Amino acid sequence: MLASKVIPAKDAGADRASRTVISVDAMGGDRGPAAVVSGCARFARNTDGVGFILHGPKDVLEGLVSRRKPLAGLCKVRHSDRTVTMDAKPSHVMRNGKDTSMWSAIDSVRNGEAEACVSCGNTGALMAISMMRLRKLDGINRPAIACLWPRREKEGFNIMLDVGADIRADGDDLLQFALMGTSYARNGLELARPRVGLLNVGTEEHKGRAELKIANDLIAAAAPAGEFDYIGFIEGGDIPAAHVDVIVTDGFTGNVALKTAEGTADQIREFLRSAFAATPLSRIAALIAYTSLNRLSKRIDPRRVNGGVFLGLDGIVVKSHGGADAKGTEAAVKLAFNLARSRFSQRVAARVASATAVRQDRSNGQSGNGAGK
Amino acid sequence: MLASKVIPAKDAGADRASRTVISVDAMGGDRGPAAVVSGCARFARNTDGVGFILHGPKDVLEGLVSRRKPLAGLCKVRHSDRTVTMDAKPSHVMRNGKDTSMWSAIDSVRNGEAEACVSCGNTGALMAISMMRLRKLDGINRPAIACLWPRREKEGFNIMLDVGADIRADGDDLLQFALMGTSYARNGLELARPRVGLLNVGTEEHKGRAELKIANDLIAAAAPAGEFDYIGFIEGGDIPAAHVDVIVTDGFTGNVALKTAEGTADQIREFLRSAFAATPLSRIAALIAYTSLNRLSKRIDPRRVNGGVFLGLDGIVVKSHGGADAKGTEAAVKLAFNLARSRFSQRVAARVASATAVRQDRSNGQSGNGAGK
Repeated sequence: MLASKVIPAKDAGADRASRTVISVDAMGGDRGPAAVVSGCARFARNTDGVGFILHGPKDVLEGLVSRRKPLAGLCKVRHSDRTVTMDAKPSHVMRNGKDTSMWSAIDSVRNGEAEACVSCGNTGALMAISMMRLRKLDGINRPAIACLWPRREKEGFNIMLDVGADIRADGDDLLQFALMGTSYARNGLELARPRVGLLNVGTEEHKGRAELKIANDLIAAAAPAGEFDYIGFIEGGDIPAAHVDVIVTDGFTGNVALKTAEGTADQIREFLRSAFAATPLSRIAALIAYTSLNRLSKRIDPRRVNGGVFLGLDGIVVKSHGGADAKGTEAAVKLAFNLARSRFSQRVAARVASATAVRQDRSNGQSGNGAGK
Repeated sequence: MLASKVIPAKDAGADRASRTVISVDAMGGDRGPAAVVSGCARFARNTDGVGFILHGPKDVLEGLVSRRKPLAGLCKVRHSDRTVTMDAKPSHVMRNGKDTSMWSAIDSVRNGEAEACVSCGNTGALMAISMMRLRKLDGINRPAIACLWPRREKEGFNIMLDVGADIRADGDDLLQFALMGTSYARNGLELARPRVGLLNVGTEEHKGRAELKIANDLIAAAAPAGEFDYIGFIEGGDIPAAHVDVIVTDGFTGNVALKTAEGTADQIREFLRSAFAATPLSRIAALIAYTSLNRLSKRIDPRRVNGGVFLGLDGIVVKSHGGADAKGTEAAVKLAFNLARSRFSQRVAARVASATAVRQDRSNGQSGNGAGK
């Protein structure tokens, strides 16, 4: 079913063993494989030590790769005929998706051929396949999906997790989410000392479910050794706030919040469109304001929020936007590469092991964790 | 602490016993008691059979009432010195709020002097006092707060409950929310056959928490006798959808979803403002588009979503917008009056009793419920 082709390295001196290999699902995005291959080429032009395994129809991909000089010698193409469509049900893909480019891309990470996977295909299906095919890291109870949430008061993003890997999380799981999220913030967003908030229905300490009170204590206790600041409970309206970087919640609540925000943004886009179409004068105003509106439209595009990184698995999976162009793909590949290079997965595992050790023996007074960032 | 004054009825023939009395917290709104009293007068001018108990500083309120002819003979004023401020913590108000106008307004319902309460004050405090001071209806396990959510594709609102009365709900509670929500849709929004959806992280039947699967079966089974349509699971993005009228969820999830949507709407308003301030040309466009933008602003005003009705209590409590003017207050009073007149609370109790009976003895084949609407 799978065919593979190694394109010989143009640089005979390249040390293949030192390359960080990214497995890229070239199919399933709105702009087709050309944008994806072009994005990989952009990244390879500026970065040493990257390699790619591209998944999709062999003829198409080899044609695209051969026209991109920066990719010469850096790409394998792994053939697959089928693509996961945007409207495919995750449960259906899990049963019938074995010969799709997405499945193949995840399996390259599973097999150890690649350290990270990037796909701009169907989010739900990618989550489902990743959770099923990749092993959990040692010490992780429950992997999580982290999304980037546009920040309110300035450019940039907050991280929220879990947004749908699982529908439940107890106090210990929420502590692990805090540790994985801060590690992601450090290695992915380059924040030295992330600020963590725990999503609840109020900011008063006695509020919320029992597991939130437990998590509140656990996360506060882990903050000094974990080198992050814990700001306590936050509410739904604070998710885009500038006073927090990492928002911790269970996958049910996180998923509802994410989809509610996307739905609200979509709804306001429609309201905006109809407001500007209401009268001839407002249509003229819309023309004049075209650039501003376009800028706004980009900021509230739900697809920008839709990206996700899967944390707690033995391998990194980055979901790029469905509408990503070459530049968008480059950014996703860069994130995957940086996380892989920083040995992110191993660091997460070390952080979690360290926090567990600290918890089990707090009286030691140990403060370091030796897990790097 | 409380002083009361009965203004003699101008119409000696008025049958006081047949009046539906609304208890109105005149304080705590952004526009002060004048807007509230004016709203009551607007309603009284067009409606027979209403009476009011107004709560707040006696001198101020009597002065305002005496200038409104339609209110002559219809109002009692109940003195209270203190007002619950918008930034007061609900837990603080519960401990220290006994002599506030809000507390006094709820207690008039508790004492049986009034059938419904209207307040435009602090939402959290109003919820907390209502839940504490009003008894639960017979057969109701868990009262709920229903909010109105602006609908996506046309004018109008969907109903979501619970948005924060409690943080948990089992399968039976969610069934009761469906019954209370449809009763509210019929008596408050005049929908003959409401469509009910259950909030989940996916629309596939096997998704979600255990209590959601139980509720899914219970609500589907109750739909024929309950005279509503059950459309199954919906996701966060569907809350404003036109294919559903009543969205059922637990108070934790509902509260996070509501606040997340409010936060998103707020955020986009800020983005919009900065987009239109970006360049001289865009500022001119904003001037030209002033009316359209104003229209949009009203549609995405979080305060419009903020209204809530408390269901399952022995007495009706309607939260009006903090920024409500006379017209807004009139609408809130009208909703409270209609719900009280339709004997809404009793109907909810009957619906719940009937559904419980149907559930306990489904083999009877009984289909009616005799509970009216």
